[in-house]
Amino acid sequence: MEHRSEFSKKIGEESSNYNQLESAGQLMYTLIGELYPICRSITGRGFRTSLASLKHYIPLEIHEVPSGTKVFDWTVPNEWNISDAFVKNEEGEKIIDFARSNLHVLNYSIPINRKMSLEELEPHLFSLPDQPDVIPYRTSYYKENWGFCLSHNTLAALKDGIYEVVIDSSLSPGSLTYGEYFLAGEIEDEILISTHCCHPSLCNDNLSGMAVSTFLAKELTGMKRRYSYRFLFIPGAIGSITWLARNEDKVHRIKHGLVVACVGDPGPMTYKKSRRGNAEIDIAVEHVLKHSAKNYRITEFSPYGYDERQYCSPGFDLAVGSLTRSPHGTFPEYHTSADNLGFVIAEALEDSLAKYRLVIETLECNKRYINLNPKCEPQLGKRGLYTSVGGQKQSPENELAILWTLNLSDGSHSLLDIAERASLPILTISNAVLHLERHGLLRIAE
Amino acid sequence: MEHRSEFSKKIGEESSNYNQLESAGQLMYTLIGELYPICRSITGRGFRTSLASLKHYIPLEIHEVPSGTKVFDWTVPNEWNISDAFVKNEEGEKIIDFARSNLHVLNYSIPINRKMSLEELEPHLFSLPDQPDVIPYRTSYYKENWGFCLSHNTLAALKDGIYEVVIDSSLSPGSLTYGEYFLAGEIEDEILISTHCCHPSLCNDNLSGMAVSTFLAKELTGMKRRYSYRFLFIPGAIGSITWLARNEDKVHRIKHGLVVACVGDPGPMTYKKSRRGNAEIDIAVEHVLKHSAKNYRITEFSPYGYDERQYCSPGFDLAVGSLTRSPHGTFPEYHTSADNLGFVIAEALEDSLAKYRLVIETLECNKRYINLNPKCEPQLGKRGLYTSVGGQKQSPENELAILWTLNLSDGSHSLLDIAERASLPILTISNAVLHLERHGLLRIAE
Amino acid sequence: MEHRSEFSKKIGEESSNYNQLESAGQLMYTLIGELYPICRSITGRGFRTSLASLKHYIPLEIHEVPSGTKVFDWTVPNEWNISDAFVKNEEGEKIIDFARSNLHVLNYSIPINRKMSLEELEPHLFSLPDQPDVIPYRTSYYKENWGFCLSHNTLAALKDGIYEVVIDSSLSPGSLTYGEYFLAGEIEDEILISTHCCHPSLCNDNLSGMAVSTFLAKELTGMKRRYSYRFLFIPGAIGSITWLARNEDKVHRIKHGLVVACVGDPGPMTYKKSRRGNAEIDIAVEHVLKHSAKNYRITEFSPYGYDERQYCSPGFDLAVGSLTRSPHGTFPEYHTSADNLGFVIAEALEDSLAKYRLVIETLECNKRYINLNPKCEPQLGKRGLYTSVGGQKQSPENELAILWTLNLSDGSHSLLDIAERASLPILTISNAVLHLERHGLLRIAE
Repeated sequence: MEHRSEFSKKIGEESSNYNQLESAGQLMYTLIGELYPICRSITGRGFRTSLASLKHYIPLEIHEVPSGTKVFDWTVPNEWNISDAFVKNEEGEKIIDFARSNLHVLNYSIPINRKMSLEELEPHLFSLPDQPDVIPYRTSYYKENWGFCLSHNTLAALKDGIYEVVIDSSLSPGSLTYGEYFLAGEIEDEILISTHCCHPSLCNDNLSGMAVSTFLAKELTGMKRRYSYRFLFIPGAIGSITWLARNEDKVHRIKHGLVVACVGDPGPMTYKKSRRGNAEIDIAVEHVLKHSAKNYRITEFSPYGYDERQYCSPGFDLAVGSLTRSPHGTFPEYHTSADNLGFVIAEALEDSLAKYRLVIETLECNKRYINLNPKCEPQLGKRGLYTSVGGQKQSPENELAILWTLNLSDGSHSLLDIAERASLPILTISNAVLHLERHGLLRIAE
Repeated sequence: MEHRSEFSKKIGEESSNYNQLESAGQLMYTLIGELYPICRSITGRGFRTSLASLKHYIPLEIHEVPSGTKVFDWTVPNEWNISDAFVKNEEGEKIIDFARSNLHVLNYSIPINRKMSLEELEPHLFSLPDQPDVIPYRTSYYKENWGFCLSHNTLAALKDGIYEVVIDSSLSPGSLTYGEYFLAGEIEDEILISTHCCHPSLCNDNLSGMAVSTFLAKELTGMKRRYSYRFLFIPGAIGSITWLARNEDKVHRIKHGLVVACVGDPGPMTYKKSRRGNAEIDIAVEHVLKHSAKNYRITEFSPYGYDERQYCSPGFDLAVGSLTRSPHGTFPEYHTSADNLGFVIAEALEDSLAKYRLVIETLECNKRYINLNPKCEPQLGKRGLYTSVGGQKQSPENELAILWTLNLSDGSHSLLDIAERASLPILTISNAVLHLERHGLLRIAE
Repeated sequence: MEHRSEFSKKIGEESSNYNQLESAGQLMYTLIGELYPICRSITGRGFRTSLASLKHYIPLEIHEVPSGTKVFDWTVPNEWNISDAFVKNEEGEKIIDFARSNLHVLNYSIPINRKMSLEELEPHLFSLPDQPDVIPYRTSYYKENWGFCLSHNTLAALKDGIYEVVIDSSLSPGSLTYGEYFLAGEIEDEILISTHCCHPSLCNDNLSGMAVSTFLAKELTGMKRRYSYRFLFIPGAIGSITWLARNEDKVHRIKHGLVVACVGDPGPMTYKKSRRGNAEIDIAVEHVLKHSAKNYRITEFSPYGYDERQYCSPGFDLAVGSLTRSPHGTFPEYHTSADNLGFVIAEALEDSLAKYRLVIETLECNKRYINLNPKCEPQLGKRGLYTSVGGQKQSPENELAILWTLNLSDGSHSLLDIAERASLPILTISNAVLHLERHGLLRIAE
């Protein structure tokens, strides 16, 4: 009795298909390393280059949406590109240098090339007095501005004087880029996996999400799927708004969704529920985490965070939650130069991928069945499904799974309902289903 | 972003309109001091005199209901009045004297004027062996009886002998008096504030309630109100029964109500829920207390207590709870001479009034709104409702309030629902509503 | 105000009708002593002899169902009888002897009479290495097999050699026997009390159940009952399956039911809920246990256990729970020779019977009433139902019961609902009903 569902077996094989020398975690870490130096933003060359890297793994479809396009209440902004930026002191030293870290520039800074006093410069400098060693990540997408981010220690050491301030950037009509990968399944109902890709050199937020989504998409590619899957690689906020605005007619197909972010740090998994709070995705993720025998956290929905803000806006109210490790804003490395290649680890990436895989297995097998022998238990012993010597203290878990499945398969309970009530992993229930179907004791509900 | 709703501002001004030298708490304490010596009962001159005092604050309408009037299962009793009462010992000393405390007489005692032995007198004496220093408060409204209440120490010291027993009272046809103060609002729906006024020299129960109700009524008088308000100043039990019997046709207008009692002691606020248990008033009061940053208690409904017993009888089942400080029967001073001017304090009265004010603000602003841009978030930054520099760890509370209001304003959530889900005070949400309405992003739901 | 309902008084008298020298607990213990030596199984003479013993207490109807009868997915098995069984060593000593304990034989063993080596014998020997002193109880009803159960100490001491192995049993067409006792009530709705009687020398599981069921049936016999009662004395699993298969047309009459087992050990009462989880029986039993001022446990339904597995199969989904003391599988004596006359005690049997009695009283009196004076409270004082001297701190419990009954008797609350909300025992509420009915203040709801 150790069969697993067709889907489970296949995804298992996929996941063991990696290079024998490197685990999926290590491969994802390598991908993050490649993407790390690129200066991404919500538009521009860095974003395009990054998607091009992902195309080595999955055949992403790339969309370009012209600047100025109206998307609901928003307008696609001008495209931003940057070549160089620095601040030089009177001695000609580059005391702030984009070449050393792309976080040094306020993301979306307009160009500037001028000498100025420290007094004039200071309002354009951003630092974190409480974390004086790190460079913060700051943006000004929708209000024209320029600025530099630097460690508070560096800022504090600046002397009065005249500084040469250069940002060699451009902000002009172009387009917003996003990647989409659609996998058709047996049914039109879709599972959405959405990942924001607009952050520059920040590993956990969200190169980790880009890596895990890409590898998950790759695994699902070769498999027989009940659900259709839609992977989005988008700039945060404006990206999901743009996709929703351009695909309003398809939105109703999205039955479950997850926003992937911060999945590479060593913290425990954290699930933020959808706005609905009791959607199937909410129950499925909690089920998976509960049976993972590791620490985990469940938090309620709030309209602050990542793109779930848009998917869960009241006009859509999609069943989309967010499955992360340490959530945004809760770890000191968040949105600073400390969210670097030393902060994310292969083991965490691997574990995150495994959890996403289990959530998908859960949704794939979460059907309703009908007990074909609903009056009293069927005689399981004569079918080899029950111990022949009676009188023992306990029934083994697979027998309990069979009894629970028979007892609750009345058409109103899904496998997840049964698993939850039985306090057993859904894959144990799903395995019981296979045996009961084989013996003609169960059929799928219409 | 520090505007408050029109209602909030006005009630705030009202509440700061007091004499500059004296707080509302001190003024209420002064009123209690005026009312304290009067011997009130469920009918009679003491009740009338007390209402006359309140008329200095609010234009109470006084109703007189003749003795003998049928009110549901009850009959308005004869009117009771008392001039004097005492017990004299053989030495001619008044060992019990109504002039010293009106609690000394069993309230509603029939007249008596006779000499008798201690043995004959004793069944008519009431004391509290467990609290030997205080005079208990006892009544016999509906069974003719006479008696005296005294400290157990005094009782224990009584010697055998002949006592002169005088109660100069009358119990004869007259009327039951109650005061009513109605404030029309924009809508016919009413909020009921009910206060029993039948207790003699007892400060917390319920001169405190009379004072707080009166001051609340006065504050509401000059304001623009959505709801209509009905303040009742009634004798306990028979008063609410009488009012309900005479106003059955209006009862359906009462949407929310509070019974005001024991609001002057230093204990924490206590809310006893309505029979329904999850009425809007129940959620509103708990919301206010939860956000008051003080200790508080919530208790379930029970059909024992004050006039909520009648309002919540199954034939009416009104959404009426009771908001007190220390509840009846739970403090040692309860219904004894220790519930005196030393037991109630101005600070507690002021705090209670503030809580009632906040509950009313909550109900006044608890409407439903419609997000006019329900698909994705509107672009708040271009309207100055959102920080322009992005990337920070947290959003300030006013931005969160705006996001929550937009997210849940789908017509099915009231502001109280939103505030509860956001764990923010409703006035913060209400303030977000003002901004969103001003920017055309929200409209009131029909 | 100390009347109890007619039913309560009668069941009280019945329960005090026992022999003055012996409590019900002692009498039940004596019955268990009589039944203990008999070798019962799911069919055969031992089962019949046991039911014959119960007929001294209640006029059980005995049913015989022929071997081979189809009952849903099952077939009534051949009848099993046994005269003797032993294993002799080379010295001619009976090292295992059925005459010393009928647990020594694997229940339903086919006959054997042969000499064999220890090696050949060993796969047919069952012991408990973790509890080396006791003989386990094992069965093989549905797969032909033979075997012996013995202490692990005895097993470990066996030497190589040739053993004479004799089981003088028969397994051949006959019938399955069960006992049924039906007590008609005022209504057709039935309460089912089901007891498995198939275990050999095991006292708690389930001679205790047989004794408590029998005494409960006897007590109910002479009483005026609202409900009809059906007592089943059946072999486990196949017995309830057989009864359900033969009585499908009557099953809908079963409104509440309990499976009686393990009611003689000193552990606290344990209630396992029905599959529905919130059926009236579930609330009633928890109510009784909660007000018993003793430790107790409530567990959720699971499809593993006793005959509730069949009653709660999805094709029936009856409101049947199981009320035990220590549940199956949780005490070390379970299904071993240590579940003997030293393990069960008269006090526990008596207490279990008392709890069953209270559950039945609860169900019998759990009706809905209508307050005939629903607008405000009726004037209870003039009817002698309320203290005439007012002002006291608390109302006595019987007055509170009256107030709660009036407040919630709106036709939608049963007495159990009222009792639960009032945190009072239902018999206190039921007593209030008597007084209110007598005064014309309450009538039963249709």
